[in-house]
Amino acid sequence: MQYPIAPGVPPGSDTGHLSLFGYNLNEEYPGRGIFEALGEGIVLEDGVAFRANFATVSRRNGELIVEDRRAGRISGEDAEALASEISQMSLLEGEVEAEFMHTLEHRGFLILRGDDLSSEVTDVDPHEVGYPVLEPLPIEIEAIKTAKALKEFLIRSHEVLREHEINKKRVREGKPPANFILPRGASKPVSLERFSDRWGFKPAAVAAGPMYKGIAKALGFEVHQPEGATGLPNSNFRGKIKEALDLLENFDFVYVHMKGTDVASHKRDPKLKVEVLERIDDALEQVTDPPEDLVVVITGDHATPCLLGKHSGDPVPILFYGKGLPKDDASNFHELDASVGGAGWFLGADLMKLILNFSDRSLEYGLRPLPRRRWYVPKKEELTPFRI
Amino acid sequence: MQYPIAPGVPPGSDTGHLSLFGYNLNEEYPGRGIFEALGEGIVLEDGVAFRANFATVSRRNGELIVEDRRAGRISGEDAEALASEISQMSLLEGEVEAEFMHTLEHRGFLILRGDDLSSEVTDVDPHEVGYPVLEPLPIEIEAIKTAKALKEFLIRSHEVLREHEINKKRVREGKPPANFILPRGASKPVSLERFSDRWGFKPAAVAAGPMYKGIAKALGFEVHQPEGATGLPNSNFRGKIKEALDLLENFDFVYVHMKGTDVASHKRDPKLKVEVLERIDDALEQVTDPPEDLVVVITGDHATPCLLGKHSGDPVPILFYGKGLPKDDASNFHELDASVGGAGWFLGADLMKLILNFSDRSLEYGLRPLPRRRWYVPKKEELTPFRI
Repeated sequence: MQYPIAPGVPPGSDTGHLSLFGYNLNEEYPGRGIFEALGEGIVLEDGVAFRANFATVSRRNGELIVEDRRAGRISGEDAEALASEISQMSLLEGEVEAEFMHTLEHRGFLILRGDDLSSEVTDVDPHEVGYPVLEPLPIEIEAIKTAKALKEFLIRSHEVLREHEINKKRVREGKPPANFILPRGASKPVSLERFSDRWGFKPAAVAAGPMYKGIAKALGFEVHQPEGATGLPNSNFRGKIKEALDLLENFDFVYVHMKGTDVASHKRDPKLKVEVLERIDDALEQVTDPPEDLVVVITGDHATPCLLGKHSGDPVPILFYGKGLPKDDASNFHELDASVGGAGWFLGADLMKLILNFSDRSLEYGLRPLPRRRWYVPKKEELTPFRI
Repeated sequence: MQYPIAPGVPPGSDTGHLSLFGYNLNEEYPGRGIFEALGEGIVLEDGVAFRANFATVSRRNGELIVEDRRAGRISGEDAEALASEISQMSLLEGEVEAEFMHTLEHRGFLILRGDDLSSEVTDVDPHEVGYPVLEPLPIEIEAIKTAKALKEFLIRSHEVLREHEINKKRVREGKPPANFILPRGASKPVSLERFSDRWGFKPAAVAAGPMYKGIAKALGFEVHQPEGATGLPNSNFRGKIKEALDLLENFDFVYVHMKGTDVASHKRDPKLKVEVLERIDDALEQVTDPPEDLVVVITGDHATPCLLGKHSGDPVPILFYGKGLPKDDASNFHELDASVGGAGWFLGADLMKLILNFSDRSLEYGLRPLPRRRWYVPKKEELTPFRI
């Protein structure tokens, strides 16, 4: 069993993955927005970026109450037209420039640019319908200016949106107006150390969901999305495993993301989850007799119990499978057997070191072939020969 | 089960022991050379020390390729004669003095002395035959001078060795010439806190291998090597346990090292390993009915799977045995039973605190009888009475 972040801590899809890939969340996590942007193919090079939805709010007792976090999943056409009205805005008397970029449906990104901005501001999105829109608060002193600029953007964009002809039309048609931009996940475009530099693997990813593609890109994975891979319960799981096996010709670490079980769990639909698991089981037949040098690792970036319909801080089972690997008595792959399995219990932060170990690549502690701290046996070409 | 250092990290014999003895590798590890020297009876009081083998290299395309890391296990006589030619060398125009000390067979130590030297340089020894000798690189800015001095020593000693009559004779006889000094494990003679000060025990060691004796000496253990203790599969395991039980008259912590299983595993000889384990089982009969106040702890400083023939980052089983200690359902001492055993899974860094606990010596967290942070209940003579 492993806890992707720590016992009792529910991971986000970004933080769960980063932790499992061996990045220290306390020191290296830049915030979520940057990964979502990358997943949509947007590279943020400067400023502070927020994932920002079109949403529907109503005013009650001086508060703005969130009626719909996605403005009724507004059409791309309507959203695009609305976005064009707020795409550029000069804030704090010209000290900060705001850019709003629409992507798909209700989704977009807000970027603030200017001197002395910080990503340490609280989420405006309360993440719950019926809750008030939240005041952006500075988490550190240096973020006061960012919080102020963000507040000005929210007020002014709200004024533009609520008066807009498209929204008036939506109301007449009984649709929720897209009258507010709900930002969350402030992040800076910090560059994370490449996965290949950190762990010595040449990595590829097979994924469909934007967030997962974004994380993989941010870490320098080559991202592949085979035909029929949707990021949904109907995804082509068999095709994803096939693609991964093909990629092993040119890469020595392939990450395959399967989102279907999580989608079923968010829908609180255990029947659908079982169906997805059975289809994933089928797909995994392709690796039940793996090549001599393949280490198969199966686990989750978080638990999503159907009872809760959201991520939880529960541990998740993990399987290491390959020729010559340690064995145990477990006969099934599920929480009960895994909790007394031969790999014990560990934290997601330890996973990459265990993978190095099981793939016979770990460096004995105390050896120092490279001038930087590394956990893997370096490849010959990374070494510096002594020339005389 | 316990991971001596961390999940997936293969310990060296020095780092595994230090971690199990409760020393923080990130902050306190001085490098390996110092322990190897101590094991050979050499106390390094200043300078930067390297373990340094006589090796055989050949030149190919401007690189020096390691042909034999032990120069055909050169005889002590040949090695001694070669060593005398490079035993003292003045480097960097007199700023650094090098001393090379031969010990046994191909083994020796290199010590650099001078102002502003650092042990933060990479290994010159690639640890693999067929690999190039590696350039000594500074890991920190302060180590640039050390790396330069080391490089000068390598070049000049190579010139002396390759032209030496003994090596010419070795080549004529078809033996690999000892034409290079391969240093590794740069370390400073930092003084580690004494084990007795840190944990409140008066410690003795029963060991035969030089490295293990070196670690024990560095931590202030009194080291004993009973007759027939060889550090090999043929060792007198029964005599070692007997010696340990005798030492308990005068010491309250006795560390017994048994190397035989590791030797068998490095040889990839599971049959020999089983034989060694059976002989250790026999020897342990002496503690199956331990005195009331004895806590027996049996574990390894690392796994060495016969399949790999080298240290791995796998966990190792651990047994706490004594009167009044917690019990569990395990009926055998091996990985499968231990992985669901009553002591759970923990890190080597936690072992000493568990031993304090099982020997009823741990200090309740929050109590502060001493002006330093301690985990054990201090002895009466460590306390400072209030005198008025």
